[in-house]
Amino acid sequence: MNTFTKEIMSVGEMACGTKLTVPVFSFKAEENSSEDNLSAVNTAEQSIAPNVYIQANMHGAEVQGNAVIFQLLELLQHSELKANITLVPYANPIGNSHKSGEYTLGRFDPITGENWNRMYHFDQSIIKPFAEQHLTSSEEEIKARFEQLVAEQIDAKLAPSVWGLSTGQRIAYQLQRLAHKADIVLDLHTGPISSKHLYCAEYSKASAKYFNIEHTLLIPNGFDGAMDEANFCPWWYLQEAFVDLGRDFTMGQGIFDKEAYTVELGSQEQIDLDVAKEDARDLLTYLQYKGAIGGSEYQPKEMTRYACHLKDYKTYYAPMGGMVDYLAGFGKPLAAGEPLARILRMDVYGDSSINKENESKALHYVSLDQTVLPILHFASANVTQGSELYKVFTNYFEF
Amino acid sequence: MNTFTKEIMSVGEMACGTKLTVPVFSFKAEENSSEDNLSAVNTAEQSIAPNVYIQANMHGAEVQGNAVIFQLLELLQHSELKANITLVPYANPIGNSHKSGEYTLGRFDPITGENWNRMYHFDQSIIKPFAEQHLTSSEEEIKARFEQLVAEQIDAKLAPSVWGLSTGQRIAYQLQRLAHKADIVLDLHTGPISSKHLYCAEYSKASAKYFNIEHTLLIPNGFDGAMDEANFCPWWYLQEAFVDLGRDFTMGQGIFDKEAYTVELGSQEQIDLDVAKEDARDLLTYLQYKGAIGGSEYQPKEMTRYACHLKDYKTYYAPMGGMVDYLAGFGKPLAAGEPLARILRMDVYGDSSINKENESKALHYVSLDQTVLPILHFASANVTQGSELYKVFTNYFEF
Amino acid sequence: MNTFTKEIMSVGEMACGTKLTVPVFSFKAEENSSEDNLSAVNTAEQSIAPNVYIQANMHGAEVQGNAVIFQLLELLQHSELKANITLVPYANPIGNSHKSGEYTLGRFDPITGENWNRMYHFDQSIIKPFAEQHLTSSEEEIKARFEQLVAEQIDAKLAPSVWGLSTGQRIAYQLQRLAHKADIVLDLHTGPISSKHLYCAEYSKASAKYFNIEHTLLIPNGFDGAMDEANFCPWWYLQEAFVDLGRDFTMGQGIFDKEAYTVELGSQEQIDLDVAKEDARDLLTYLQYKGAIGGSEYQPKEMTRYACHLKDYKTYYAPMGGMVDYLAGFGKPLAAGEPLARILRMDVYGDSSINKENESKALHYVSLDQTVLPILHFASANVTQGSELYKVFTNYFEF
Amino acid sequence: MNTFTKEIMSVGEMACGTKLTVPVFSFKAEENSSEDNLSAVNTAEQSIAPNVYIQANMHGAEVQGNAVIFQLLELLQHSELKANITLVPYANPIGNSHKSGEYTLGRFDPITGENWNRMYHFDQSIIKPFAEQHLTSSEEEIKARFEQLVAEQIDAKLAPSVWGLSTGQRIAYQLQRLAHKADIVLDLHTGPISSKHLYCAEYSKASAKYFNIEHTLLIPNGFDGAMDEANFCPWWYLQEAFVDLGRDFTMGQGIFDKEAYTVELGSQEQIDLDVAKEDARDLLTYLQYKGAIGGSEYQPKEMTRYACHLKDYKTYYAPMGGMVDYLAGFGKPLAAGEPLARILRMDVYGDSSINKENESKALHYVSLDQTVLPILHFASANVTQGSELYKVFTNYFEF
Repeated sequence: MNTFTKEIMSVGEMACGTKLTVPVFSFKAEENSSEDNLSAVNTAEQSIAPNVYIQANMHGAEVQGNAVIFQLLELLQHSELKANITLVPYANPIGNSHKSGEYTLGRFDPITGENWNRMYHFDQSIIKPFAEQHLTSSEEEIKARFEQLVAEQIDAKLAPSVWGLSTGQRIAYQLQRLAHKADIVLDLHTGPISSKHLYCAEYSKASAKYFNIEHTLLIPNGFDGAMDEANFCPWWYLQEAFVDLGRDFTMGQGIFDKEAYTVELGSQEQIDLDVAKEDARDLLTYLQYKGAIGGSEYQPKEMTRYACHLKDYKTYYAPMGGMVDYLAGFGKPLAAGEPLARILRMDVYGDSSINKENESKALHYVSLDQTVLPILHFASANVTQGSELYKVFTNYFEF
Repeated sequence: MNTFTKEIMSVGEMACGTKLTVPVFSFKAEENSSEDNLSAVNTAEQSIAPNVYIQANMHGAEVQGNAVIFQLLELLQHSELKANITLVPYANPIGNSHKSGEYTLGRFDPITGENWNRMYHFDQSIIKPFAEQHLTSSEEEIKARFEQLVAEQIDAKLAPSVWGLSTGQRIAYQLQRLAHKADIVLDLHTGPISSKHLYCAEYSKASAKYFNIEHTLLIPNGFDGAMDEANFCPWWYLQEAFVDLGRDFTMGQGIFDKEAYTVELGSQEQIDLDVAKEDARDLLTYLQYKGAIGGSEYQPKEMTRYACHLKDYKTYYAPMGGMVDYLAGFGKPLAAGEPLARILRMDVYGDSSINKENESKALHYVSLDQTVLPILHFASANVTQGSELYKVFTNYFEF
Repeated sequence: MNTFTKEIMSVGEMACGTKLTVPVFSFKAEENSSEDNLSAVNTAEQSIAPNVYIQANMHGAEVQGNAVIFQLLELLQHSELKANITLVPYANPIGNSHKSGEYTLGRFDPITGENWNRMYHFDQSIIKPFAEQHLTSSEEEIKARFEQLVAEQIDAKLAPSVWGLSTGQRIAYQLQRLAHKADIVLDLHTGPISSKHLYCAEYSKASAKYFNIEHTLLIPNGFDGAMDEANFCPWWYLQEAFVDLGRDFTMGQGIFDKEAYTVELGSQEQIDLDVAKEDARDLLTYLQYKGAIGGSEYQPKEMTRYACHLKDYKTYYAPMGGMVDYLAGFGKPLAAGEPLARILRMDVYGDSSINKENESKALHYVSLDQTVLPILHFASANVTQGSELYKVFTNYFEF
Repeated sequence: MNTFTKEIMSVGEMACGTKLTVPVFSFKAEENSSEDNLSAVNTAEQSIAPNVYIQANMHGAEVQGNAVIFQLLELLQHSELKANITLVPYANPIGNSHKSGEYTLGRFDPITGENWNRMYHFDQSIIKPFAEQHLTSSEEEIKARFEQLVAEQIDAKLAPSVWGLSTGQRIAYQLQRLAHKADIVLDLHTGPISSKHLYCAEYSKASAKYFNIEHTLLIPNGFDGAMDEANFCPWWYLQEAFVDLGRDFTMGQGIFDKEAYTVELGSQEQIDLDVAKEDARDLLTYLQYKGAIGGSEYQPKEMTRYACHLKDYKTYYAPMGGMVDYLAGFGKPLAAGEPLARILRMDVYGDSSINKENESKALHYVSLDQTVLPILHFASANVTQGSELYKVFTNYFEF
């Protein structure tokens, strides 16, 4: 049975002094340690295993990933470990503890409004100078030196300073320090009330079918502050910079085989340990495919997979305030004109004496003008005008 | 087709001056108006129809009752109306608009913490003097005069005054002014994540089986501030006072045929108009039984009905903080020792090197020492120690 | 220099497992330990020093008391200690950590709405049997046995049980276990935006002038769930029960010399360590008067002290929503008709073309019909109708 | 006496159907109407008066601007009006009604976290084509056509659409539609607990001394989503595009005389009508200088004015959780090493037995390594690690 180590990382402090901490679980690859990357890459032919980083619950209400990490820890103790795997549940105890009444609000810093998953660091200005300086370096050296550079940048951010760090930066940078060496990053999230779906960079879409997830969002390779982007973007920009300088590299291959995903596991505010076991097995399918675990136990399921580009992932905003009866189910096409939802407005019930049908005043059916694939909807029936009622795939395709 | 009138009642004002209003829908009984109660009761043998009052959404997140009132309005337009029926959706627009993030928090005044459904008025000191004064009055006179007295009390509360009214009093008293003449009051609520259940005063339990609701909570006849109690308590105390003085009346009969219920329709934060249609038909079953509508269209369903006394309605508080996987379903007995829930605690996963089973440290199954009937559970998996995890019937019985 | 001990008490657990703790600081009396109350009372003539219990910050935003306890700890190390003194800052870390945006909301359990300072335990049913059983016991025995009975009750509440405790009960009972042996209890609070004022039981009003606080609220001796009441009520009811049975005791004297106060230190959401030093010296004035510390360093200040009965402590509710310019200062009489506040309503500015004075539509001056002493006002200018705009002493008197 | 018109603009809808509205007050210039801009500009030599737009309370808690608009309305009725002036209090009733307990949270959309003042529209892609197309047009035509183009863009955003608008977009675009023709825009805000300060674009800094505000932040001319930027940025970029194409224009002059400011009036959550009168007179000083009102009644005050560049406006983040005693006052230089604040941490009081000074463990003085000008601080003493404790001018200069 494989053993893991556990460390406790302090990421914040409440007003009464309580420290908020994050547990970090780490497995080592069975044989080839990739600790010393430089020498490891020298013997790359002997199958150096990847570093894998998995975290959950960066958004406070999105707790199912913690249960998935529980099940991963249970399963990985009995797996053939070919990678160093770091698992971080409760990644953001500040977000998780941001309750309001029964519910959990932690999608953003409650003081600043900043999304907790938009505060990771990436400084594009380092890319070009690095590529110029290492234009003729060996691949192994490029990999090692660039990992070091990225690491130094995070360390500098976390070093004591006069002005200090915001609450969110302190968390994000500490997690990033754990993640930045990883070849594979899985950031476990959920939607409000939601189907499972995957955020996948365009360049790594070939891997997406090894997740047992029916819906894939293809995102551009640029940086918007999220964990997945913070991990693949530096390499993407570096690869591009090398190509611009005439050295031929391909993102997703060789030393640029870096993949990072945001995995949306379903709905927030709930955990189900049985479903989590299935989710864990599904993630192991991908990890086995990538060589992070050995054997052939986990095989991708047969399923129709749909994808759409991020620009075609559309939000339907509530056209009015009201009480919403969500009608469109997730994951199957909804034809143009078919109702997404009906919105009840008792304040106007019976308003027109001319109109015999009182109902028509008080019940509004809303629909779209094209076929879509509904992915998630708002968490409450009680909505103000302009709330994000549904998010849907448009121009989606089988994949 | 029956027609209704609609009035708009202003119950509050936001800081920027916006008035918060409540729509009030009223049907009149087809033939016998009970407007003039005094004369009406004189001819009571000709079956005077009751006044019925139905409201919904006093707690902000409990929105399904609005959909039920929608369906009742649709159905009552085609029913044989033998009562004056007042229907009030959106009873508390202040609670309803108390959103926090996606969710609705409105169970209590966000400034004072007072439960919106504990602010109705009842002054027990009026009872004994009234009974003494009317010891020999006719039943009709007692009914009319006591209704008048109760009305005057509410009017006095709502009259302009130096010190003013709290936000919750202003709403509660205005609703109470609409409700106080009713012989039947239905206050539509929901639980957090919940089965349907009914709060029923002990004296009116014979009526409970005409609701198609499997779980009935038998509450004592005293006053604790809620709408149902505010309506039946004055009559209960008056009946008792008369008995004490030697005049024989029975609560629930004759002029004391006053019934008021809190109907818990299921879970909060959602509406379903199809379910609401069923709910509406179920309420009409009771109203038909009470003679408020004619015909025989609505008949109670065959079902096993369980009841328990309020003192046996127990809350199970979370024994620890953690992520809760709720296991016990609603409405069927859970044997002693069977798990209610399992609580995940990733912070202690792997803590004991002695104990081989990491799981046992991180997963806690919680159960009870007696057979119970789970009725509702907390709305989030993400719970702090001491949260109300489950509410269950104990010592329940078929009914 | 006197030394103190420090213990850490765990009072709650967050969802991610973080324990919320309370530091407890304790000084022992210099010579006469009152640990063994039974023997101590036997030699009562040799002036047994009282047990003193001081806590702060039961309500989350009311933080100044923590600074006062800081200053008390600094000063008590150099005082002549004639009492055992327990000091508990951060009494409620759950309330304190209940932030919403920049502010702190912790006046009540955010899930249930229950005021954190209304959850202490008192069971009146124990009083009469105890008095009957100890009708002829010695005073020392009565004191010791009753303290033991009260302690056992709290211990029973805190003992492991099937159903568990609510979040607020767990905190309240643990604090109460620390406080229940005390002869003097000081519970440090603040108002929203507020003058200093003191809640003082009627029977102990002679002591109130040893606090350097200008405004005293005289509260009845009954139990309403608060810390101060939880400490003096059992003794009050016991003394009454003995008197009813014919044994002559006086509340506030001999073994019934038990005093407990809620001290309102000013406004919430702020600390000032310099003011806290003055506050600490003011509390030491009272403690010196009661013999808890020796010497004569601290003497009550000359000031006009006002008092009013709790029934005359009135809330003025906002008669409309609006933006409030609070005009009435604290602590000096406001004549009838003088403005408390003016309320701005830009939504109606200019509404009447007849009325030349636009201002009169948009600016409302509010006043009262009697002279009052304003004590505190609402924390925000932005108020909804029915908010608690001001709290004032009416029928107040010099004291 | 000048008269104004008043219109009501609906900007949102609550779940129960209540419409949230904004009052819009408009004065017309006394003689020269600039309604028909095209012809007006034709006679530009006769000093066409500017259009002025003033709004307040875009952030919910920042209410003092409403009082300032009240006083402006009072004063403008007796001024010599040389501009068309639109005044909009309560600009964001959704933010204003986002209360949580006593306080107001409305700095951002409570569901998305988006800052209400970062959702205005600007599409830079329109600039270059417009400049190319109008390279040889007359100034009047450029002004009229560009105003029209900007207007069309906003109208297109507000036109009915399949996907709808978010809550914040609906408000922002409607306000922008009112503001976009203005030559002068004043957006009235406040800080948390704050001195008065002014956000001023670099190009318009000469005007800053006509505000009676001691602290000016010089912001770059680019677009970051705020109201002030949304108004001057299009013109700035247009002017630059013309210059790039060889036509000489200067931002701030001629048809590019467009100025927009964010005016920070002090602290949030309070109004003071007397201070507001002073504030209003101060704004009129600037408006008189710009020719929007006539006469010479309002003259700038003598005061030392400090400015700093936005990049030098620094946030000091709380280095630890704790209770903060804010020491540094606003508006006067704080020398390097002088304390900004002291942070109380009772949880560590007395922790070291070696260290005799308990205080040193529990009280942390924080300071900076350079002289700064404190401008604002956090609204609560009760802070978590990483909160924005102070914002200060560094590298500031007299101005």
